[in-house]
Amino acid sequence: MAKMKEVGVAVLGFGTVGAGVVDTLAKNGDLLAERLGLRLVLRGVADLDLATDRGVAVDPALLTTDGAGLIARPDVDVVVELIGGTGAAKDLALQALRRGKPVVTANKKLLAEHGEEIHRVAEENQTEILFEASVGGGIPIIKALREGLCANRIESIYGILNGTCNYVLTRMEEAHLPFETVLREAQAAGFAEADPSLDIDGHDTAHKAAVLASLAYGCNVPLAKVRVAGIRGIAAADIAYAADMGYRIKLLALIEGGADGVEVSVQPALVPHHHQLAAVGGVFNAVLVRGDVVGTTLYYGRGAGRAATASAVVADLADAALNLRAGGRRRDLSAVRARAPVVFRDPGEIVARHYLRFSMRDLPGTLAKVATVLGAHRIGIDSVMQKEAAKGAAYVPVIIVTGPAKEREMAAALAEIAALAGVTDRPTVTYRIEDFE
Amino acid sequence: MAKMKEVGVAVLGFGTVGAGVVDTLAKNGDLLAERLGLRLVLRGVADLDLATDRGVAVDPALLTTDGAGLIARPDVDVVVELIGGTGAAKDLALQALRRGKPVVTANKKLLAEHGEEIHRVAEENQTEILFEASVGGGIPIIKALREGLCANRIESIYGILNGTCNYVLTRMEEAHLPFETVLREAQAAGFAEADPSLDIDGHDTAHKAAVLASLAYGCNVPLAKVRVAGIRGIAAADIAYAADMGYRIKLLALIEGGADGVEVSVQPALVPHHHQLAAVGGVFNAVLVRGDVVGTTLYYGRGAGRAATASAVVADLADAALNLRAGGRRRDLSAVRARAPVVFRDPGEIVARHYLRFSMRDLPGTLAKVATVLGAHRIGIDSVMQKEAAKGAAYVPVIIVTGPAKEREMAAALAEIAALAGVTDRPTVTYRIEDFE
Repeated sequence: MAKMKEVGVAVLGFGTVGAGVVDTLAKNGDLLAERLGLRLVLRGVADLDLATDRGVAVDPALLTTDGAGLIARPDVDVVVELIGGTGAAKDLALQALRRGKPVVTANKKLLAEHGEEIHRVAEENQTEILFEASVGGGIPIIKALREGLCANRIESIYGILNGTCNYVLTRMEEAHLPFETVLREAQAAGFAEADPSLDIDGHDTAHKAAVLASLAYGCNVPLAKVRVAGIRGIAAADIAYAADMGYRIKLLALIEGGADGVEVSVQPALVPHHHQLAAVGGVFNAVLVRGDVVGTTLYYGRGAGRAATASAVVADLADAALNLRAGGRRRDLSAVRARAPVVFRDPGEIVARHYLRFSMRDLPGTLAKVATVLGAHRIGIDSVMQKEAAKGAAYVPVIIVTGPAKEREMAAALAEIAALAGVTDRPTVTYRIEDFE
Repeated sequence: MAKMKEVGVAVLGFGTVGAGVVDTLAKNGDLLAERLGLRLVLRGVADLDLATDRGVAVDPALLTTDGAGLIARPDVDVVVELIGGTGAAKDLALQALRRGKPVVTANKKLLAEHGEEIHRVAEENQTEILFEASVGGGIPIIKALREGLCANRIESIYGILNGTCNYVLTRMEEAHLPFETVLREAQAAGFAEADPSLDIDGHDTAHKAAVLASLAYGCNVPLAKVRVAGIRGIAAADIAYAADMGYRIKLLALIEGGADGVEVSVQPALVPHHHQLAAVGGVFNAVLVRGDVVGTTLYYGRGAGRAATASAVVADLADAALNLRAGGRRRDLSAVRARAPVVFRDPGEIVARHYLRFSMRDLPGTLAKVATVLGAHRIGIDSVMQKEAAKGAAYVPVIIVTGPAKEREMAAALAEIAALAGVTDRPTVTYRIEDFE
């Protein structure tokens, strides 16, 4: 029996996911060899910090601080970039691509900010960049979008893509706790970073949304075109009121495309309780994809973590290795083909229903004025709920669920309502309601 | 600009799915060409019935009754088998493979009954058989298992794989209607066949379970090793009692593998209400896959129908065409590699909790005797629920939820209980409870 073909792997970045990849290659290497008919062989692991114990057995001879040197070795065929960020990660990924070596990455920030350049360099060097692990952790959503659903025009994608945010929102609802308490708790439990802004303020979700949208619409999606709002400061009261009305608040990546253009945004939105995305709790992720042929499909799993992310990285390694054996890239880089840039929808023209919470004094008079302003902007009212005022509070919370309205009209109406001096004491809270229709 | 490479496609079988494939290639052909860098060109459609209107525009010159002739044409590169069954479908699929032409099929029966031969002939002729559409309709579950999760040892797969059965069970629960009424209704609505046995009695799900298990464990899974029970005759009462206790009855494909072997079965099982598979309603399908690295993932979508199935067929066509461009097959046929055959678990050793419904006369005395028999077989009782007898009925329904027990002990206990003459008038109803642990 001939010796099985070996494909040499370099891992750049020996953090949590890097250790998971090393572990998975060791644990399931034989199974992978049997499945693929080739063997993924770890040639080296590069990291500036070689002192920290990663909790995984690795031959010390494989460890190096010289990432560039590792990439250059002739027995390295594929490079895994798990450094993160856009400094050394970008530099080393481009070095690998320029040597014609495929790069596997989990780095959504790198892709969202420099995807066009990276894809171009891959193209110029007849090699490829694979990034299953960049969105949805272990869920094979990139493969589903790019391959499994390739016969479809993608109509929409709705994703719960950040485990930290989903954990915080789930816990706030279940335990009736305020945002700051739950965030501190999540930080203590290791579900949130010491500096939580990247997650909590929606930027991580925005990076992932840009990656998904660029795949779905075969174009570069600049981050500047992604409207972003995070979950910081969501009130426990709004989570409770939404629940009363049959909704759960989720941080959603919203991607919709049609004849009038594409919308890509990240925002907290009200999701009906009975909808499957409402059932996604804790650190799990889910992505709902609508195609014009297949209809609705949904993908669910762990969105982060050492092992789940390693599962996606190694799947990409397998694809890269099979492609090398077959003589090169397999799919064209449809995400960045030279073609007319996609048109983005004018945000003001986007139509949605909204959840509005007003803080009112003098209830009857104020409600009438607010209703008049909404009516003047042709914004219908689907339901009104008035909650009891907190003991001693000077204002009464009133929830209005609107009918479908253009965001431009909604913004104008809210500005007018804010100017109704003395009737609403605090800023109106407003969230989109996502009916998935 | 060079002319784009063309890949010639023959469609065998111009039924519902065949028409969907022709339609999708026409509708999204340009998009596919842009994504793939090659063009899928329909060379012909073969069917014995060329008279029926399929509701899709097709050049009459493409239609033929000569499937073998179409396969043999030099400008046909890939063959789509949508004839169904194991007669002409098998014959023509083998003809195509022997000519070295990849075959795309939706035919789970063919794969489950003749998979070993078909994979062998594909292997011998250095070509491949692709079958995304055979399980889960438009859900890219085959690709997820074979590629996206290739780094994982598959621990278990739980699937709702038959839309007809799931529609019937959903409707029975929602409308409190008996099985026969809902089945007739489903037949009238086109959700069930005139002869519903293939679906209702679990055979279709068994074919799909065999396909999934063979992929997961890299071996041939003979249908004879798949234990099958369908949903015929499930009582509305049991659906209602299960609901009272927090469960929903679903027809599940159960695939579990461990050091002690593999279990593959199809059976109605009680699924906890809060579990995501319980939320899969109507004609939808879902597959939960557990891998040793990725943990739990779930895939959901339309499990049948013209368009959803066509989406999967065309995705396979894209893969086959890309593989041809790259010079041949890409993945080894891991499902049928020569290796030690898988060991199947002794069904008697399988441990599960059970839902039991007894029909008792003389309640206190009988319950004591039943409990004694269960205890003698070391079967614990998790809960007991006694419902009021129907007006004038001679027996009282009693539900017992058992603790975990080996099926061998359960069967022995139930046989002893059945022999308690006069105390239980009717056969005990028994379903497995699936805790997904």
